[in-house]
Amino acid sequence: MKSVKVGLIGLGTVGAGVARILTERKDLLARRLGADLALAGAAEIKPERLKAAPLEEACRTSRAQDILDDPGIDIVVELIGGATEARDLVLAAIARGKSVVTANKALLALHGNEILAAAAARKVDVAFEAAVCGGVPLILALRQGLAANRIQEMFGILNGTCNYILTRMSQDGMSYAQALAEAQQQGFAEADPTLDVEGIDTAHKLAILVSLAFGMPLNLEPISVSGISKLDPLDLQFAREFGYAIKLLAITRNDGRAIEARVHPTLIPRDHMLANVNGAFNAVYLTGDAVGPILLYGQGAGMMPTASAVVSDILDLARNLTQGLKRRAPALGCDQALNSPRPIKPLDEVVTNYYLRFAALDRPGVLSQISGILGQHNISIAAVIQKGREVRGAVPIVMITHEAKEANVRHALLEIDRLPIVSPPAVLYRIEDPNLHAAQI
Amino acid sequence: MKSVKVGLIGLGTVGAGVARILTERKDLLARRLGADLALAGAAEIKPERLKAAPLEEACRTSRAQDILDDPGIDIVVELIGGATEARDLVLAAIARGKSVVTANKALLALHGNEILAAAAARKVDVAFEAAVCGGVPLILALRQGLAANRIQEMFGILNGTCNYILTRMSQDGMSYAQALAEAQQQGFAEADPTLDVEGIDTAHKLAILVSLAFGMPLNLEPISVSGISKLDPLDLQFAREFGYAIKLLAITRNDGRAIEARVHPTLIPRDHMLANVNGAFNAVYLTGDAVGPILLYGQGAGMMPTASAVVSDILDLARNLTQGLKRRAPALGCDQALNSPRPIKPLDEVVTNYYLRFAALDRPGVLSQISGILGQHNISIAAVIQKGREVRGAVPIVMITHEAKEANVRHALLEIDRLPIVSPPAVLYRIEDPNLHAAQI
Repeated sequence: MKSVKVGLIGLGTVGAGVARILTERKDLLARRLGADLALAGAAEIKPERLKAAPLEEACRTSRAQDILDDPGIDIVVELIGGATEARDLVLAAIARGKSVVTANKALLALHGNEILAAAAARKVDVAFEAAVCGGVPLILALRQGLAANRIQEMFGILNGTCNYILTRMSQDGMSYAQALAEAQQQGFAEADPTLDVEGIDTAHKLAILVSLAFGMPLNLEPISVSGISKLDPLDLQFAREFGYAIKLLAITRNDGRAIEARVHPTLIPRDHMLANVNGAFNAVYLTGDAVGPILLYGQGAGMMPTASAVVSDILDLARNLTQGLKRRAPALGCDQALNSPRPIKPLDEVVTNYYLRFAALDRPGVLSQISGILGQHNISIAAVIQKGREVRGAVPIVMITHEAKEANVRHALLEIDRLPIVSPPAVLYRIEDPNLHAAQI
Repeated sequence: MKSVKVGLIGLGTVGAGVARILTERKDLLARRLGADLALAGAAEIKPERLKAAPLEEACRTSRAQDILDDPGIDIVVELIGGATEARDLVLAAIARGKSVVTANKALLALHGNEILAAAAARKVDVAFEAAVCGGVPLILALRQGLAANRIQEMFGILNGTCNYILTRMSQDGMSYAQALAEAQQQGFAEADPTLDVEGIDTAHKLAILVSLAFGMPLNLEPISVSGISKLDPLDLQFAREFGYAIKLLAITRNDGRAIEARVHPTLIPRDHMLANVNGAFNAVYLTGDAVGPILLYGQGAGMMPTASAVVSDILDLARNLTQGLKRRAPALGCDQALNSPRPIKPLDEVVTNYYLRFAALDRPGVLSQISGILGQHNISIAAVIQKGREVRGAVPIVMITHEAKEANVRHALLEIDRLPIVSPPAVLYRIEDPNLHAAQI
C-alpha cells in the first residue's frame, strides 16, 4: 500500500486534534484514501504539548525547520496561527515542493495572493477548508459543489465568539461586558478579544469567501468592518420590536457591476434561518443563481471541528499525491489568469435599509425636524417607534428607513447630531430584509 | 485549450436545465476548469424538447444510442429517470469507457452496486450529487468534506413534495387531500404521487446516504418505510401541544453494532432546525464524531437546483479527464474492498420514544387499562393528554412514551386494540428528541 506522509507544525488545540484524528483513525482514513496516511512528524516549541503528541520520539521536534527539511514529508500542515512566521513557513514548504494545508485565515487574508502565486509557480497545492466556518465544508461547496452557479449574495455568521455574546445579550438581557466576561470564562473568547469582537476575524474570513464566490484575488483592504463592542442592549430590544434579530454578519453581494463586502452588526428578520443560529455556531446563507438559497451550519471553531476540516484537506491533497497529480483544481475555484476582478464598492455607495436611533432631549417637534433632514437627503422612513419613557435622560426615537444610500444617511446623521434637541451621536445599524415593504410614512 | 465533451440523455426538466447551464455559462465553466466544457450531443425522444435544446442540429438526436456510440463524448449524463432503461444506458456508457453522471436515485438504490462494480472494472467514474437533496452539496460533504468523521446519526428531509404537504397541513390546517391537491396544482407533486407520499423516494435517497455515511454497499431492502398519506391533522395538533412538529424524516444512526435506517413521519421538537424547514425545501442534519452537528439546507428538486448539482459533477469528472485521471476517489467515499458492512437493524429492534393516540369509547378506567398493558410490555409513559371533548365519536388519549423497543410497542398496541373500550387502530408515530426527559407518570 502506498503511503502519504504528513508533517504538522504547531500542536496547539487544533494541531493536537489533527494528530489525534490521524493516529486514532488510521483505518478509516486508509479505507477512504486507498493508501496509508502517516503522521510522520510534528514540530512544537512548547515541550509539554510536544510530549503529549501521539507519535514516536523520533518524529517529534521543537524546530519547524526539521519538518520542512524532511524529504519524506509530502504534506506540511501549518497550525501555528499568526501571519508573519506562518507566512515564512508556508512559503518555505512551498519552495521545497510540499503541499500545504492551513487553517490560518489571517495568513490567507494578508498574504494569500503571494502564497497562492508561489504555490502556482512551484506547482504545489495549498488547501484551507478550516480557515472559514471550521468543520463546515463551505469552501468545498464554493470551489466545487456550487461551481455551476454565479453567487448572487452571501451572509455569514463567521465568528462564534461574537455570536455567543450576541445570543447571551439578546436571549438573556446581558450587557456586552457581562456576555464577554462569560464567553471568556467558557473559553469562547480570548483574554484579548479584539480580533473577534471588532469584526477583524470575520473580515479575514469574508476576504476568503469573496475570492471564492467571485473568483477574484484576495483583498482584505476594501472590506469595511465594524464589530459588536459598542452594541447597546437597547438596540437589541428595539430591533426585536420591529421583528428583527441583530447578528454580526459578513455580507457580500454581486450587483452585476461591483461587489459589496462588509462586516457589521446587522438586523435580520427574526424568522430568517440565520436569526436562529445561536451560541458559538457559525452559518452561511447564500444564494446561487441556479441553486437558489443554501444554508450551511455547524461549529466554526474548537479542536475537533476544526481538525475535521484540516484532515479533509489532507485527504484531498493525499488523493492527488497517490495518483501523481498536483494542482488538480484552483485554490480559489477559478483559474486566476482567466479572470477579471471586479471592484469592491465603497461603503458610501452601498444602498440598503437602516435602523436609526436618536436620543431626543425635547420631544415636541423633534420627529418632524429629524424626518425633515432625512427627507432632504432622500431618505424615507418605513416605520418609527417613539417611546414616551425616558432612557438615560432622553426619549429614544427609533426608525427603519426605506432603501437609502449610505453616504446620504451619514450626511443626514451629521446634520441631525448638530440639532440642539438631540443628544448625539445617532445610532446606525444596517438591515438585510428582502421583505421590507412597510408603508411609507 | 483542452476540451471535454458532454453528451446528455434526456431533455426533460433537469436535462433542459443542464443544457442551459452548459451553454449559457461556457466562460464561467472554462475559468473553473481551465479547459473547454462542450455540450457535444443530446438525445431525447420527444421532438419538442429536442427542438428547444440550445445546440446545433447535428448534435441533436432522438436515439440515446447515438450518444453512447459517439467516440468523441467523454462524459454521459443520464437524466431519463426510471430504473430499467436508465440501467441499460448507464451500463452501456460504462462499457464504452465513458464517465457517467446521473441524478437518478431509484437507479442507484436498485442497481447501484452493479453499476459501481461495472465502473470499477472498467476504471471509469460515476457521480450522482443531484440524486439526494438536489442542489445541496451533501454527497460531496459526505465523500470529502466530512471524510475525517465517523457519522453518528443523520436526519433528512429529503422529499420536497412531502415537506410541502406537511407544511400546508401544519401551518394552514389543511387535510392531507387538500394539501396534496394544492401541491399538484403548484407542480410540487406528480399526478400519481405514490413514490413521494409513501416515502419510497425518500427511502431511495436514504439508501444512498447510508452507504456514504457508513461506507457500505447500497441496500434498499432493509430500510423500513412509511409515508404521510394516512396522516391525520389531529396528530399534527396534538404533536404541537407536546411541543413537536411532524416531518417525514429519513433517519440513519450507527449504534456501534448495527445501523438504523428508516423512513417515517417523525415528531421532532419545534425548536429543532429541521422543524423550521418548510415548503418544498430539503435539509439534512447530521452529527459527525469530530465535527459535531452540521445542517445543510436548500432546494431538493426543480430544474436549476438539480442542474446545478449535475453540472458540479460534470466539472469534477472533467477535471479528472483533463489530467488523464480516472477513479480518483471512491464513489461511496470508501474503498469497498477494504470495508466490512454492518447489518441494518430490523425495525422491531429499534429503541426510541413513541407518540401514541387511542380513541377511547368509554372514558372512565380506560387510561388505567391502556397504561397497564403498556407497563406489562415495559413501556413507560412520559406525558399524557386526555381531551374531554369527543372527536369523531370517541375521546382521544394521546401519550408520549419513554424509550421503548418497537416490538414491545407493537405487541402492546395489538392488545390494546382488542379492548372493547377503544376504537382501533391505535395511531403510532416515532419521536426524535434528545431532550425527552419528561417526568414519568
